[in-house]
Amino acid sequence: MPRVSPSTASRAREDYLEQIHKLIEEKGYARVVDVAQNLGIAQASVTNMIQRLDADGLVNYEKYRGVVLTEAGLDIAVAITDRHETLTRFLELFGLDDETIYDDVEGMEHHVSELTLEAFRALQEELERQPAMLNRIRKRMGSHSKKRA
Amino acid sequence: MPRVSPSTASRAREDYLEQIHKLIEEKGYARVVDVAQNLGIAQASVTNMIQRLDADGLVNYEKYRGVVLTEAGLDIAVAITDRHETLTRFLELFGLDDETIYDDVEGMEHHVSELTLEAFRALQEELERQPAMLNRIRKRMGSHSKKRA
Repeated sequence: MPRVSPSTASRAREDYLEQIHKLIEEKGYARVVDVAQNLGIAQASVTNMIQRLDADGLVNYEKYRGVVLTEAGLDIAVAITDRHETLTRFLELFGLDDETIYDDVEGMEHHVSELTLEAFRALQEELERQPAMLNRIRKRMGSHSKKRA
Repeated sequence: MPRVSPSTASRAREDYLEQIHKLIEEKGYARVVDVAQNLGIAQASVTNMIQRLDADGLVNYEKYRGVVLTEAGLDIAVAITDRHETLTRFLELFGLDDETIYDDVEGMEHHVSELTLEAFRALQEELERQPAMLNRIRKRMGSHSKKRA
């Protein structure tokens, strides 16, 4: 089973490929300026990183046409997007605010193994059949949670 | 509620303070050589980092007497140790192998908010009262899990 490498370089790479994939899904194309905005990183740094991803065979980058994912890049992007969605759906069960969920998922998604994700999926299926249990947990969380304005 | 910063520098700092705390709890003292061994990092790098932690007021380091935690250092060490233990207990519920749990917890512990930890604690209490549900999840995981040799 593939293990997500937790190195800083590989985490950054996963974040870039995830954002490029998201932009292509939403808008049909990914431009450096949009990747920079979504990641909150300066455009020059984004261009550098995308040139490295191109050299590694994960994207094709043409200056005036934007960025497209290669098959290898798409595989990584789909895997990280799947981890992101599984973790988000799981944390949403407990009535946490959206900001906490997003921040936690963005960190956790690079570190959670396939086995743990599978346990969370199994747990989610079980919990969805136990509304009373989920309500007790949400009620307990409600006294801690700060809702987003 | 304090938020764990996910920067690489702060993750490394948390790992060091966690290990120093663990050594002091287990052996009564923490030497650079033992911290280096436990973290799998060269002794010279560990000495550098511990000198920085000393400058930041998180440890006191004397070359021939080892490392002790200041009050501020102990607070961080106790918080990360608590996150580590909460996550380990939670993942242990599902019958994952020890190596997967350890690797996932070491990554996740720097990224999980207090709110999500609280949700995991609430969920664990509920699950411990539902052995049939836990057994179904463990059975499903059993077909994926590789046990440690």
